Amino acid sequence: MATAAEAKRNSTTQAVAELREALGDRLSTADAVREQHGKDLTWHEGESPDAVAFVHSTDEVQKIVYVCSKYGVPIIPYGTGTSLEGHITAPYGGISVDLQQMDAILEVNPEDLDCRVQAGVTRKQLNENLRDTGLFFPIDPGADASLGGMAATRASGTNAVRYGTMRENVLSLTAVMANGEVVKTAGRAKKSSAGYDLTRLLVGSEGTLGVITEVALKLYGIPESIAAGVCAFPDVESACNATIQTIQMGIPVARIELLDTLQIQAANAYSDLGLVESPHLFLEFHGTETGTAEQSELFGAIAEECGGGEFKWATKTEERNHLWQARHDSFWAAKNMQPGLEALATDVCVPISRLAECVSETKKELEERGFYGPIVGHVGDGNFHFQVFFDPADEAQTKSCKEFVDSVVLRALAMDGTCTGEHGVGLGKMKFLQAEHGAGLQIMRQIKMALDPKNIMNPGKIVSV
Amino acid sequence: MATAAEAKRNSTTQAVAELREALGDRLSTADAVREQHGKDLTWHEGESPDAVAFVHSTDEVQKIVYVCSKYGVPIIPYGTGTSLEGHITAPYGGISVDLQQMDAILEVNPEDLDCRVQAGVTRKQLNENLRDTGLFFPIDPGADASLGGMAATRASGTNAVRYGTMRENVLSLTAVMANGEVVKTAGRAKKSSAGYDLTRLLVGSEGTLGVITEVALKLYGIPESIAAGVCAFPDVESACNATIQTIQMGIPVARIELLDTLQIQAANAYSDLGLVESPHLFLEFHGTETGTAEQSELFGAIAEECGGGEFKWATKTEERNHLWQARHDSFWAAKNMQPGLEALATDVCVPISRLAECVSETKKELEERGFYGPIVGHVGDGNFHFQVFFDPADEAQTKSCKEFVDSVVLRALAMDGTCTGEHGVGLGKMKFLQAEHGAGLQIMRQIKMALDPKNIMNPGKIVSV
Repeated sequence: MATAAEAKRNSTTQAVAELREALGDRLSTADAVREQHGKDLTWHEGESPDAVAFVHSTDEVQKIVYVCSKYGVPIIPYGTGTSLEGHITAPYGGISVDLQQMDAILEVNPEDLDCRVQAGVTRKQLNENLRDTGLFFPIDPGADASLGGMAATRASGTNAVRYGTMRENVLSLTAVMANGEVVKTAGRAKKSSAGYDLTRLLVGSEGTLGVITEVALKLYGIPESIAAGVCAFPDVESACNATIQTIQMGIPVARIELLDTLQIQAANAYSDLGLVESPHLFLEFHGTETGTAEQSELFGAIAEECGGGEFKWATKTEERNHLWQARHDSFWAAKNMQPGLEALATDVCVPISRLAECVSETKKELEERGFYGPIVGHVGDGNFHFQVFFDPADEAQTKSCKEFVDSVVLRALAMDGTCTGEHGVGLGKMKFLQAEHGAGLQIMRQIKMALDPKNIMNPGKIVSV
Repeated sequence: MATAAEAKRNSTTQAVAELREALGDRLSTADAVREQHGKDLTWHEGESPDAVAFVHSTDEVQKIVYVCSKYGVPIIPYGTGTSLEGHITAPYGGISVDLQQMDAILEVNPEDLDCRVQAGVTRKQLNENLRDTGLFFPIDPGADASLGGMAATRASGTNAVRYGTMRENVLSLTAVMANGEVVKTAGRAKKSSAGYDLTRLLVGSEGTLGVITEVALKLYGIPESIAAGVCAFPDVESACNATIQTIQMGIPVARIELLDTLQIQAANAYSDLGLVESPHLFLEFHGTETGTAEQSELFGAIAEECGGGEFKWATKTEERNHLWQARHDSFWAAKNMQPGLEALATDVCVPISRLAECVSETKKELEERGFYGPIVGHVGDGNFHFQVFFDPADEAQTKSCKEFVDSVVLRALAMDGTCTGEHGVGLGKMKFLQAEHGAGLQIMRQIKMALDPKNIMNPGKIVSV
């Protein structure tokens, strides 16, 4: 009689054989391909899927779901592999569904300020394609992530303070659910009260309820005027306070990003920014000529009142792009400062009134534990990121690093915040969901069990039933 | 042996007896009270609940859910009774849970631009309370609805074009779920990626998944400058085209409302507006002094290009309030024109590029069928409302009226729109959900069955399992 492990192996073998028939050489079982699809950029241990399917259509994804459902084999959706909490790893094996080749921009409707793309289109690809229309899509996580992956993880980025996150900017989704049905969650109306909000249920579900294959998104007109610049502050508290006042005054700032002294040093080294070594806010204003001038003047007054230095303009487009590329490269810049060490990169988010306190206490704890840990933050949203560098061979340091993450998350929760503002749960934040959601976690589990009773959709993540 | 009907009656009697013990005279079985709680303002036939509970706390709601779950008795949440699609009627009897006495404003956090209120607080009550803080809550359906009811129906209103709907403005909810558990869906962070979006699942669920008892909301600073006014157009198409161009240009208009000629006549009669009898846009701009001046100038140029008349300012606050009160009173104004007739009031929403076409075809059909049917619209969102007046005693007319609604909804769906932009599904739009959502409707039903297996939460509405 076959053992459970043997039975599992047999079903997987059969599923892989059937899928090979359907996909040909777009189903790979090569070790290198499987390994690359099981491991993300971070400290989370990778586990390889049994095979990787490079899909071309919603129909192919549906076929995979039917086969995997028949054999009880896990499905792990894969965009660009840039998620940060172990979302894409395959702890129970299964088929990694790589959507990168689904990269068609299906429609752009300039009149309605919306578009529809396949899930593998990346944010930069979309914006390059949109250039001639005068429109853009603002959500910008650090990586050039796929829009399907960004929807699945409820991503945001530096523009969220003005334009919202994927939660606000996904108009509708096409997804293959665990039962193999293809669901289109909504039409193109800007708003609707017609039933449960399946769009928002799938946004942030990290592949545990279905595989997102198409995304309809809101677009925005490229502003007539964009003003950007940097402002130095004597300490993190004063930068946070300037941020709080800017938001409270209702200045429609498009970006307001904190980089602490360590991150400025890293950015100077990596991107040759030449900034004075103290905490900075990077800012951007969008609007008419008059509007951006007015906004930056108002901000200048606030900054001065908070002890900040002069607001230094980035007047040329190239200068501005260089600045924001440096901000987006902050993960790599910091990694560059600590070659050979492992980086634990994660985020929390708190009500903005608690931001200065939360960042300061976190920095203090970093110092006490002796870690190099630069902090960057989408501070207009109360969201900040930290990277901690450690040597995985050093057990005590590794333990302290993990304790530190626990401590920051509990601090954020005690301030009525959340264990993750934009990175998502994956494996890394699962243990905090009970503390954050209480009875709500059981509701999430009931939804997961109802929609995926065989638990084939990215099993072992988020609510792990 | 007891029949099914007798058994049902017995369980209801027992549930009512237990609840009377808990609530005393705050549980009413008086005919007038029951009738008033079973019938909304519209043509939908009312069915009375068996009893009405006037609750004071989340704990009391939890007690009711436990008792109703034990006896399998329906629960129908009731806010101000101003919903428009039969949401509050009790087709299977049960307990109407009236939340109006839960009217405490629990916290206002000016630093974080948020607040937390009990579900029975109305939008006007909240804004009166906020006045000294310099903040306001923008979502404004016509009625002075309760914020719990507005969350439950995913309400919006005239400000949605700028500030979003309840979908975007509810920060978190407290709800008693069908299993009796009290769930708080989120903390106070502005964004989160921590698990499934239970907030958005409950917003728009119309009491079919749980009873909302508290609502945390985003707030906004009262703009430094508010400019409002009206602009006449030769026809509905040109008004729609001016709207489309305004949105496409990214002018951050706070309100842009269409009233057709019939509605202007009604408003002139009801609110003494003295406007020329042609389609109008009512507008409002929010911002700094410079900003609103710039916005209205830009709009003026667009209006002129589209054949519109002069933009007439409402300079004084009282004048502005009068204008918007007239807009909010449009339902009553139209009803006033057709005394004795029943009003069927409903809404659809389409992509803005299809708005002019959808409104024109709808007006044409109204005329062809010989109905008096004024149209008003939150046209910046592609959302419009129509009222059709008919004599319920006239069978042919009633039939034609219902056919007309079907026809408008199918027209909106064919334009990739939705069967309701903001009124919700209730009973009135249930029959369109299959056409709008396809396989998604079954997903909604699975969620409903998983979270409310006894089907006690507002049964027979939305997904009706």
